[in-house]
Amino acid sequence: MARFFIAGSNIAGGTVLITGADAQHAKVLRLRVGDSIIVCDGEKTDHRCTVTRIRPEEVEAEVVESVPCPAEPDVRTVILAGLPKQQERSDFVVQKCTEGGASEIVFFVSQRCVAKPAGKGMEKKLQRWQRIAEEAAKQSGRGMIPTVSTVPDLAGALDIANKTALPLFLYETGDRVELKDAIEQAGKVDSASIITGPEGGFEPFEAELARALGFRICSMGPRILRCETAPLAALTALMYATGNL
Amino acid sequence: MARFFIAGSNIAGGTVLITGADAQHAKVLRLRVGDSIIVCDGEKTDHRCTVTRIRPEEVEAEVVESVPCPAEPDVRTVILAGLPKQQERSDFVVQKCTEGGASEIVFFVSQRCVAKPAGKGMEKKLQRWQRIAEEAAKQSGRGMIPTVSTVPDLAGALDIANKTALPLFLYETGDRVELKDAIEQAGKVDSASIITGPEGGFEPFEAELARALGFRICSMGPRILRCETAPLAALTALMYATGNL
Repeated sequence: MARFFIAGSNIAGGTVLITGADAQHAKVLRLRVGDSIIVCDGEKTDHRCTVTRIRPEEVEAEVVESVPCPAEPDVRTVILAGLPKQQERSDFVVQKCTEGGASEIVFFVSQRCVAKPAGKGMEKKLQRWQRIAEEAAKQSGRGMIPTVSTVPDLAGALDIANKTALPLFLYETGDRVELKDAIEQAGKVDSASIITGPEGGFEPFEAELARALGFRICSMGPRILRCETAPLAALTALMYATGNL
Repeated sequence: MARFFIAGSNIAGGTVLITGADAQHAKVLRLRVGDSIIVCDGEKTDHRCTVTRIRPEEVEAEVVESVPCPAEPDVRTVILAGLPKQQERSDFVVQKCTEGGASEIVFFVSQRCVAKPAGKGMEKKLQRWQRIAEEAAKQSGRGMIPTVSTVPDLAGALDIANKTALPLFLYETGDRVELKDAIEQAGKVDSASIITGPEGGFEPFEAELARALGFRICSMGPRILRCETAPLAALTALMYATGNL
């Protein structure tokens, strides 16, 4: 069923007004009066609606029923990924982690990052990622669009992660726990974060920094995952373990 | 550490001969005498070697130690995916499921497939997928290269899946069990298969066919996953649950 994200102010008195790019999209979908659609407020509530009027620049729909979006997990998960060098890899992280149930995606620059966020280019990238997140959220039936942002360094990323109940730092070597043990020992949590490195991984001192902050340093198992695969694999594992898959 | 897949016959008497494209690759890696490399026989055994001689067309190495490849899961998993319309999606399935630990990847044509495997074009695609599988196997440290193949229809795919101990059929609607329940109720298995549809999903009668054959019809949870994401998510869940992640 067609899904639109519309800010709450356009859902007044049980009537929804679809305008702008969304109205264009409705045209592409060939919506007709009487069709059922879902209008999501982007804050985890789905309004199931019936189209009541179609005009060139806007579509009107009546709310039939408002329900919590069933696709939203009960764990708010922040993905923190070392900025990959290749654009297609960061695009992948945004699209797949949105499908996978992430609430927030943050790219950061660490020692081995080749890509550097630089002024204007990064502005464009952020817009691109946010568009990818919105499309993936619509397609997968999410009740919110994950925000995509950047922080300048690992310290900033660790600070964000530290505010969640279960910060998981994925690292290739050294003294680590199994991801499964870290997740299961934590029990029921309402928030988590997953930190992964760029193509070249983390420097040992970066992992030590995280350890000193009390993070669980986790193995991703015996196979070496690419930098764009690791966040999705860990997110899927977390969703599976917490009954959100 | 550099990893090569070399058939058993080139590993004789503790000496490994690296030739052809692999020797070219060794050159690109700037291997030197004394360097450590891993030569895998493609049958789950890793030979840890030291480079002993480098010639323009071949590299010789001595086997130091032979060990079971630690990256191989103890569940042989067959991925059976409805052939996606877009090449980049099938490429994705091959690359990511190789990283994820699949032993075999099979594409099949079902009712809603738009792509059709046709003679010569398919031959080229198979070569391309096999190359992607080999690269991903090297990169992720696998002990084998998953075979990639096609079968002409769903019946063929179901037949392959039916020979594994835990055939999981992923379907969007109707009467289903949670993937987690299907995996956990099965207990310890030595083989499994994961069947997913193409972009448009399965027809209801296709799911019924699988059900009639005794397959577990599984939900992939409340979020709708793209056809290329679903096999990887299910594989990751299976690896997680069986202690292989």
